[in-house]
Amino acid sequence: MPLPDHLHPADLADELQRLTPEEAQARLRSLPRDQAAAVVQELDDELRPRLLEGLSKKELSELVGDLPHNEAADVIGKLPKEQQTELIYKLPRDDQQEVTNLLQYPPDTAGGIMSDEFIALHADQTVEGCLKSLRPKAEEQPDRNVRLASISYLYLTDDCKRLIGIVSLRDLVFSRPDRTIREMMNPDVKAVSVNDDQEKIARLFEHYHYLALPVIEKDGRLVGIVSAKAVMGVIQDEATEDMQLMVGLSGEERAFTPWQTSIRRRLPWLCINLGTAFLAGAVVQIFEGTIARWTALAIFLPIVAGQGGNAGAQTLTVIVREMALGEMSKGDGRRALIKEAILGVCNGLAIGVLVGVVAYFWKGKAMLGLIVGVAMLLNMIAAALSGVFVPYTLRAFKVDPALASSIFVTTVTDVAGFFFFLGLAAVMLHFFPLH
Amino acid sequence: MPLPDHLHPADLADELQRLTPEEAQARLRSLPRDQAAAVVQELDDELRPRLLEGLSKKELSELVGDLPHNEAADVIGKLPKEQQTELIYKLPRDDQQEVTNLLQYPPDTAGGIMSDEFIALHADQTVEGCLKSLRPKAEEQPDRNVRLASISYLYLTDDCKRLIGIVSLRDLVFSRPDRTIREMMNPDVKAVSVNDDQEKIARLFEHYHYLALPVIEKDGRLVGIVSAKAVMGVIQDEATEDMQLMVGLSGEERAFTPWQTSIRRRLPWLCINLGTAFLAGAVVQIFEGTIARWTALAIFLPIVAGQGGNAGAQTLTVIVREMALGEMSKGDGRRALIKEAILGVCNGLAIGVLVGVVAYFWKGKAMLGLIVGVAMLLNMIAAALSGVFVPYTLRAFKVDPALASSIFVTTVTDVAGFFFFLGLAAVMLHFFPLH
Repeated sequence: MPLPDHLHPADLADELQRLTPEEAQARLRSLPRDQAAAVVQELDDELRPRLLEGLSKKELSELVGDLPHNEAADVIGKLPKEQQTELIYKLPRDDQQEVTNLLQYPPDTAGGIMSDEFIALHADQTVEGCLKSLRPKAEEQPDRNVRLASISYLYLTDDCKRLIGIVSLRDLVFSRPDRTIREMMNPDVKAVSVNDDQEKIARLFEHYHYLALPVIEKDGRLVGIVSAKAVMGVIQDEATEDMQLMVGLSGEERAFTPWQTSIRRRLPWLCINLGTAFLAGAVVQIFEGTIARWTALAIFLPIVAGQGGNAGAQTLTVIVREMALGEMSKGDGRRALIKEAILGVCNGLAIGVLVGVVAYFWKGKAMLGLIVGVAMLLNMIAAALSGVFVPYTLRAFKVDPALASSIFVTTVTDVAGFFFFLGLAAVMLHFFPLH
Repeated sequence: MPLPDHLHPADLADELQRLTPEEAQARLRSLPRDQAAAVVQELDDELRPRLLEGLSKKELSELVGDLPHNEAADVIGKLPKEQQTELIYKLPRDDQQEVTNLLQYPPDTAGGIMSDEFIALHADQTVEGCLKSLRPKAEEQPDRNVRLASISYLYLTDDCKRLIGIVSLRDLVFSRPDRTIREMMNPDVKAVSVNDDQEKIARLFEHYHYLALPVIEKDGRLVGIVSAKAVMGVIQDEATEDMQLMVGLSGEERAFTPWQTSIRRRLPWLCINLGTAFLAGAVVQIFEGTIARWTALAIFLPIVAGQGGNAGAQTLTVIVREMALGEMSKGDGRRALIKEAILGVCNGLAIGVLVGVVAYFWKGKAMLGLIVGVAMLLNMIAAALSGVFVPYTLRAFKVDPALASSIFVTTVTDVAGFFFFLGLAAVMLHFFPLH
């Protein structure tokens, strides 16, 4: 029977995340074993190791033994090597091999997010034989809600455990009992490889609306399934990661990540940002003499740069997101660049004229309006181009196109903006001195 | 039978999105009717209306008639009112009422994303009777892959069609044929209301790992189901929306949204950003005299402001994302504020000292180093606080906490940064003149 709603493992896990590690451990110990195992599965990746760290060896090995294999492998995989071996050795003999198998896959691959709870049948059985062999399996499953997913589809394998087809429980139930599975199975079954990246898998699910996908080894053996449940988490996490990477965060930071951890992760990017800010400062320094002759220019520095920064962020956000959703194939980059360039020119003209007119009325100098307006137009174009180039360049270097992309685009818009604006001012002042 | 992979409707839809609307219409006309309907369901919300617009009335009404009710309602809902009535009138009589019902729900609610393809049974039947009554339904479903989801669970209703329980197909299949459904159903069934927001529903799915949730009307009547399939799309869309809203995009822009549309959506936010940039410029103007006396200050303006902007973006991104994931409850705001303030002070000290030392060696003036360093520290603290306050304030005003939040935070860090830096410089120059 499922637990009553107010005791849902996911809610209990939330409760635990709000406690100190010590309090959370005490609460976990107070729960019945099956419930504790259910709660541990719901804890987020950051809290879980901190919480389990405080358990005794005996508590930990009991707990791990109560987890499904894939969750057990997740927990064990985060421990030091010698502790891993010890824990695996303490597992029931049947589970040792399975957990060891799962441990070999990196956590962000199909192998890392798959479950090994699926039902594989031999295709040369009758429908009736199948249903008979399923009955005891159905009865032994302890929690009918959580593990229901694994039985929407049944997988058909050959003698070497290679995947050869799929049949839905529904088709099985409503077919003549004497038909063989081979007759009714769908042999055109889509599968992913154990090494496939989880982001790619999430895109497949989203694109084709799968409920579950079988996972196969290089030799075609069926080794697990990835469920829509696992994929929903991946979609959330990948979106979080992209948003965070853009501004120089780790991709895994949560609001209540301990501040010591946050500092270690954020400070390096802030230092990189500082380096790029000095670059912008250096451009200003080149034109220090120009500013000395006409200090009103300093007022418009942040306006030209800030506006470019926002326009660049708009372009960048669209491109990075589209890449993450897998919708930017080869050739699309040029098309996107053209579109963004057109936008840069149009928005640049609109904002350039606006800011030029304001500058003229504010300071009463037509020349200033002209300089600000033209610099603004040029910087908006630079913003649009860098918003496309930065993520494409990152991708060409095989890093995440989101990585610190916002920092890089801002660097371009600051440096270009100051250069256009102050450079133009220097030239104009040369030909039309103020006094 | 499912279509071969290279003709999957989702892939055909992708192909169509790369064509001009005219080409795409021609391609759509060339497809068999059932395939055309499958493809139309896969088109994204932006292209679909543009593509359907060019079809004749007859073509459109045939196509809409081939769609599932919820998709038909989506298409019809985006047309002008008089065309809506005409199209509904042309639907098969059985479908008219259902589509009209679905049309009343806003698209971002449970009612808007639910499907009305579910199987509701009366609880006072035996397992055998149930399976018998299901058989014809199972056989009439044309595409076993796409609509499989709706039959993982069966819903039990009373005489007034009110939802009273749920049973899984698996439990039904493996139970004794003479048991009644009422004995074995789970009466503690979680349902959502037709008016629930889709973002809230996505969070429920993610939190509790549902595969499908029933949707009920105010009177408890079961009117539809929301599937994990629909929710995966919602999770993607909501993440895209948040990323985009932060920098002043509509939340619906794609890389190949026509540029005319993009301009209309982006320019207003660029104008707002311009307004805030002028605010920052105005602060600089206050201290124009100070800059005139010491032009080297202008070099450090973009450094102090840019660094604050990046630190603010880090805090903001964490908070906005956490809010979107539903993980910031009451009381968490204060905790987050304290954490971010600590981070602001620590990162501010580190960056402040670093930038101060660099400024000293760069310009050879200890006073400049001190001013820049202290201003940097203060601005990093302002960045941290505004990164928390801006989304909380937006939420208090009942708008999306992501809305233009990056623009607002940058305003704070620019204005505060200039004020701290130039203000401090003015005070110092007053007491310690340069010459």
